[in-house]
Amino acid sequence: MKITCPKNQFLYGVNTVSKAVSNKTTMEILQCILIEAFDDCIKLTANDTELGIETVIQGTILEPGKIALEAKIFSEIIKKIPDNDVYIETDEAGKTNIECEQIQCSIMGRKGDDFSHLPEIEKENKITLSQFDLKEVIRQTIFSVSDNENNKLMTGELLSIENNKLTVTSLDGHRISVRNIELQESYSKMEVIVPGKTLSEVSKILPGEAKDTVNLYLTDKHILFEFGDTKVVSRLLEGKFYNIGQMLSNDYETKLTINKMELLRCLDRSTLFVKESDKKPIILKIENEQMNLMISSQIGSMKDQISISKEGKDIVIGFNPKFLVDALRVIDEEEVTIYLMNSIAPCIIRDETSSYLYLILPINVSNSNV
Amino acid sequence: MKITCPKNQFLYGVNTVSKAVSNKTTMEILQCILIEAFDDCIKLTANDTELGIETVIQGTILEPGKIALEAKIFSEIIKKIPDNDVYIETDEAGKTNIECEQIQCSIMGRKGDDFSHLPEIEKENKITLSQFDLKEVIRQTIFSVSDNENNKLMTGELLSIENNKLTVTSLDGHRISVRNIELQESYSKMEVIVPGKTLSEVSKILPGEAKDTVNLYLTDKHILFEFGDTKVVSRLLEGKFYNIGQMLSNDYETKLTINKMELLRCLDRSTLFVKESDKKPIILKIENEQMNLMISSQIGSMKDQISISKEGKDIVIGFNPKFLVDALRVIDEEEVTIYLMNSIAPCIIRDETSSYLYLILPINVSNSNV
Repeated sequence: MKITCPKNQFLYGVNTVSKAVSNKTTMEILQCILIEAFDDCIKLTANDTELGIETVIQGTILEPGKIALEAKIFSEIIKKIPDNDVYIETDEAGKTNIECEQIQCSIMGRKGDDFSHLPEIEKENKITLSQFDLKEVIRQTIFSVSDNENNKLMTGELLSIENNKLTVTSLDGHRISVRNIELQESYSKMEVIVPGKTLSEVSKILPGEAKDTVNLYLTDKHILFEFGDTKVVSRLLEGKFYNIGQMLSNDYETKLTINKMELLRCLDRSTLFVKESDKKPIILKIENEQMNLMISSQIGSMKDQISISKEGKDIVIGFNPKFLVDALRVIDEEEVTIYLMNSIAPCIIRDETSSYLYLILPINVSNSNV
Repeated sequence: MKITCPKNQFLYGVNTVSKAVSNKTTMEILQCILIEAFDDCIKLTANDTELGIETVIQGTILEPGKIALEAKIFSEIIKKIPDNDVYIETDEAGKTNIECEQIQCSIMGRKGDDFSHLPEIEKENKITLSQFDLKEVIRQTIFSVSDNENNKLMTGELLSIENNKLTVTSLDGHRISVRNIELQESYSKMEVIVPGKTLSEVSKILPGEAKDTVNLYLTDKHILFEFGDTKVVSRLLEGKFYNIGQMLSNDYETKLTINKMELLRCLDRSTLFVKESDKKPIILKIENEQMNLMISSQIGSMKDQISISKEGKDIVIGFNPKFLVDALRVIDEEEVTIYLMNSIAPCIIRDETSSYLYLILPINVSNSNV
């Protein structure tokens, strides 16, 4: 193989596909980026067998061929060479010369015959949405994905499409995050569970312009994200996602509206008093037009109060403040509305139209000093 | 104790003295910041017994007293409270209330009777220099301090004053860094060895304005840095520093002048090919008006070339590229001059007046393929 591309093309390509390079494996081929130069197209691919990314870069093919290069050293060389044309040449044995200006680097590559290509995805069930929307919806739900591999389904997010609505749901046993997006077109009902890791890597490489779109293709086993010259293919998590419908009751005994930043800052401060080994709750005491917040642990204690507007009953309820913080951070509205039933039922933070909904389980505070 | 200070005063104070809070100890008092409010002066102190820092902050004393607060939680509370006046009140038992606007925090403090104050330093041997100069000279020499505690003296830097010259020297067995600064006044000859950690912490809290000065006071056992309302006291390292005079010969067989950034970028790239377990040198082959650079390791190989101007013999010599990179990074000149004797003698990078001098030992490359 002999190719020439500007450094910035390699840099873009390597940064894009590197997200699918495995760093937890001992299989050397999974730590590689495959460069293929055929038919006027220079393609970079990485694939850790769960998640695969390929992208096309602009350059000139002087002699077609392919080579698999160890991702770490190749990307570091690309980063550190001058901003100029880069010439790459490989020999029969896999020895790869990377040249830029007067600099000549040489590393050993692999022929790449054992490289696992991205699976071919049937392009039947296609959904189109704006890159901005996809990136946002990932940010707004990814934090409540579980990192506990024992409960595999909780490590993914449910993408469910019906008519012109995409609903994204994640949950970790303590809380549920739901976001709804309106789509331009209407689709038949589809549901897939996408690994959290896939979504988080996709959100990193998506440019995220509102005017640009991303196409999603769904099959039984895979999801394909296609944007620009980049394709991301991921395995799906198999199984039946949790039925959360019955938890999302619209009933409430207390409804309160509160300034988001004020509440967020107070809760964020209160996390200073949470000890890993002894998770004390923050206790919210809602009385008339005021929320009193209290936390007390081995570290110390904090009290604060915030004005609210309230409909319904007074209530005392405790939460892990971090869970409230996570939800409030991804809500863009200036004011949030919180719905409460009683001190042992979950609270729900949602807007009027349920474009977002965050459910958080309380911590029992009946024995606490309040 | 009852005091009120603006948040930003506490923040400044805590950030300043925190550098002397020990985080390697199990002695709880060493993890504390002492707040003392007496005689119209609110003073914050931290002292890990090697290094101590105290600073004065502006505020109002409502009731004099003192308290030692755990540095980590106190500084986090200060960071997270609103930008407004902060009221601190302690009771007999050490319980400390920190109040800001409607927020009330409470943590347990210690009476601070077991807190070790900074030692009193005789203010006899005083040296004055600009904060900028001190900060710069630390940055330009600190990297070649050894982190190996077995060779205690190498973990410090020699500050030697004679007439109107301050010379700062550090070495780690592989290289030597020397910087000379001209002082405004003349002083009698003095030499102290200051722990590298002290200098690195001082450089972090020194504002570093060229127009502002810092006073150094030297005793047998201690050095005191005084600037603004802040005092830093450190133990000195005791012993006789290495005599480096005989190594800093002015003789050379090869003198070459080279563009600093070009050399630095090339060497920096070459570090990609250095493996922790197998430190291959970068080989410099100096021939006529050209430097050829080569490195070859298990990872791969790199060749580069740079134009130079040369006096004297051609030479081939090898170095750990990281050591050259460290020195070149802190030289501000556009061109550097390198003096070489032979392939087993150290190279010296210095300017005409020896305001700086970096000596680096070579790696024997006689067996390498060059």
